[in-house]
Amino acid sequence: MKIICEQSKLINGVNIVLKAVPSKTTMEILDCIKIKVHDGKIILIGNDMSLGIETVVQGDIAEEGDVVVSAKTFSDIIRNLPDNDVVLTSDDSNINIRCENCNYDIPVRNASDYPDLPKIEKDNFAVVSQFTLRNMIRQTVFSIGSETEAMKIMTGELLEIKGKKMRLVALDGHRISLRNVELDAEYGDRKVIIPGKTLNELVKIVTGDINDKVKIYFSSNHVLFEMEDTIVLSRLIEGEYYLVDNMLSGDFETKIHINKKKLSECIERASLLIKESDRKPLIFNFGQEVVDVKIKTQAGNYEDKVDIEKDGNDILIAFNPKFLLDALKVIDDEDIDIYLMNIKSPCIIKDKDETYMYLILPLNFNPD
Amino acid sequence: MKIICEQSKLINGVNIVLKAVPSKTTMEILDCIKIKVHDGKIILIGNDMSLGIETVVQGDIAEEGDVVVSAKTFSDIIRNLPDNDVVLTSDDSNINIRCENCNYDIPVRNASDYPDLPKIEKDNFAVVSQFTLRNMIRQTVFSIGSETEAMKIMTGELLEIKGKKMRLVALDGHRISLRNVELDAEYGDRKVIIPGKTLNELVKIVTGDINDKVKIYFSSNHVLFEMEDTIVLSRLIEGEYYLVDNMLSGDFETKIHINKKKLSECIERASLLIKESDRKPLIFNFGQEVVDVKIKTQAGNYEDKVDIEKDGNDILIAFNPKFLLDALKVIDDEDIDIYLMNIKSPCIIKDKDETYMYLILPLNFNPD
Repeated sequence: MKIICEQSKLINGVNIVLKAVPSKTTMEILDCIKIKVHDGKIILIGNDMSLGIETVVQGDIAEEGDVVVSAKTFSDIIRNLPDNDVVLTSDDSNINIRCENCNYDIPVRNASDYPDLPKIEKDNFAVVSQFTLRNMIRQTVFSIGSETEAMKIMTGELLEIKGKKMRLVALDGHRISLRNVELDAEYGDRKVIIPGKTLNELVKIVTGDINDKVKIYFSSNHVLFEMEDTIVLSRLIEGEYYLVDNMLSGDFETKIHINKKKLSECIERASLLIKESDRKPLIFNFGQEVVDVKIKTQAGNYEDKVDIEKDGNDILIAFNPKFLLDALKVIDDEDIDIYLMNIKSPCIIKDKDETYMYLILPLNFNPD
Repeated sequence: MKIICEQSKLINGVNIVLKAVPSKTTMEILDCIKIKVHDGKIILIGNDMSLGIETVVQGDIAEEGDVVVSAKTFSDIIRNLPDNDVVLTSDDSNINIRCENCNYDIPVRNASDYPDLPKIEKDNFAVVSQFTLRNMIRQTVFSIGSETEAMKIMTGELLEIKGKKMRLVALDGHRISLRNVELDAEYGDRKVIIPGKTLNELVKIVTGDINDKVKIYFSSNHVLFEMEDTIVLSRLIEGEYYLVDNMLSGDFETKIHINKKKLSECIERASLLIKESDRKPLIFNFGQEVVDVKIKTQAGNYEDKVDIEKDGNDILIAFNPKFLLDALKVIDDEDIDIYLMNIKSPCIIKDKDETYMYLILPLNFNPD
């Protein structure tokens, strides 16, 4: 193999496929990336057996061939080369990396040992803008369950397409986060559970440009995100997702309209008294025009008040401040509406069109 | 105690004294800061028994008194308050912190349990600009020995005043870093060893302004740095410092003139092939107009060349790349001079006036 690429384009490609290289693995070859030069294309590949990423890098090809090289060493080297043309030349045992006066020789692995990404039938797909996909992930993925404590299904998100509607749902037993979006066409109904890890990496790769599209292909075990130069292929999580519609469609007794920034600052100040391991309730007394906020911990007491507009009954209720903050952080609106039923029922934060919905369970507390 | 301070001034003061609050301690009260309101002054104090910091905060005093409060809780709270007036009111058991609608009550400790900073006789002193002191520390302190492996003396720096000359020296058994400066007057000769921890914290507090002065007082066991609103008081390390003058005054056979940025980039690229624990030699072949740089490790091989101007003999010599980089990072000159004797003798990097001197021992290597 012999190719010539600009350093900036090469490191851009390397950074993309690095997101599929596992930080820890028992299969040593997965610590590597594969450079596949074939049919006039230079393709970089990273693969952790659950998530695989391929990206095309522009460059001149002198000789085709495959190379598998340590992802850490290769990426460290390319990142620190001068911003100039990089010549990569490989034989069976080494890859030579040259740029200006710099000259590296790095051992390579047997290219045929590197596991290929599975082939996916490209029958079913949907199209969405990268901007929308990025926002939908960012605004929900924080509330998936952690790998250690949760049921497997909770470690992923539900991606559901129904008619022209697409939604992404994450939940962890204490809260539900949901984003709805209208597609530009009907693509056929679909319901899959995508691993949180895939979404956390995908969100770093999609451009966030409203004009860049991503084509999402579905097979029985995989989902494939296809962008201009890059594909992200992920296994799906098996199983039946929770039925969240009933939980989200309940009645409410009280509707609160409040400034998001002021509420966030108040909750952050209260959180300063909470040690990491604590699950201290933050108590909200929603009155006529103001909410009184209170917390008592070993570190001290805090009281604050924030102006509100209220429809319905007064209500005294407590929440885990972290869960409220997580939701408030990803809402772009200046003011938000909070819907409450009673002291034992969850609150729902949502906009009029239900483009976002955040359900959070209340905590028990001692009113005194 | 009752005082009113602007939030920005208060957090500024808190951040200064926090630098003397130990991250781990067996004396629980040292986790606190003391607010001492006395003689019309508001003074904040942090103290880890080896390093003590006091700073004056501007504000209105309604009632004098002393308060001792958890440094972490108090600083977290003050940092997150609105940018407005903060009212602090304390009794024997609590301090109340009010700002706009925010209202905290935090338990306090017995103020008389907090250890006072020792009183220092203010007889002997020297004056230097904060700009100069900051640079001198920054440019040497990286080469003190670590607490775990080094002799106690190596964990500090020598501060020596002789006539109008002041110098700061750090060494760790593999290298020496030295900075010289001319004082504006003679203050009396002095020779003390200051703990590295003190210097690392002090460097964050001094302003870096050439017009701000710092007055340095010496007693037999302590050194006191006095700035406009802040004093930093530190124990000294006992013992006799190494005699470095002989090591730094040796002859040389070869003088190299080289661009600092190009040499740094070359060493950084070579370092990418070194694992953290390795002590791999980076081999320099200083020839007529160019230095060939080479390294071989398990991760691969690297070769590079950098233009030089050379006086004297060709020389093949190897160094620990980290030690070279540490020195190059803190030198502000564009081009540097490296003085070499032979393959077994240290190199010295210094400027003409010897305002800085960096001595680095060579490593053994296998030439092949």
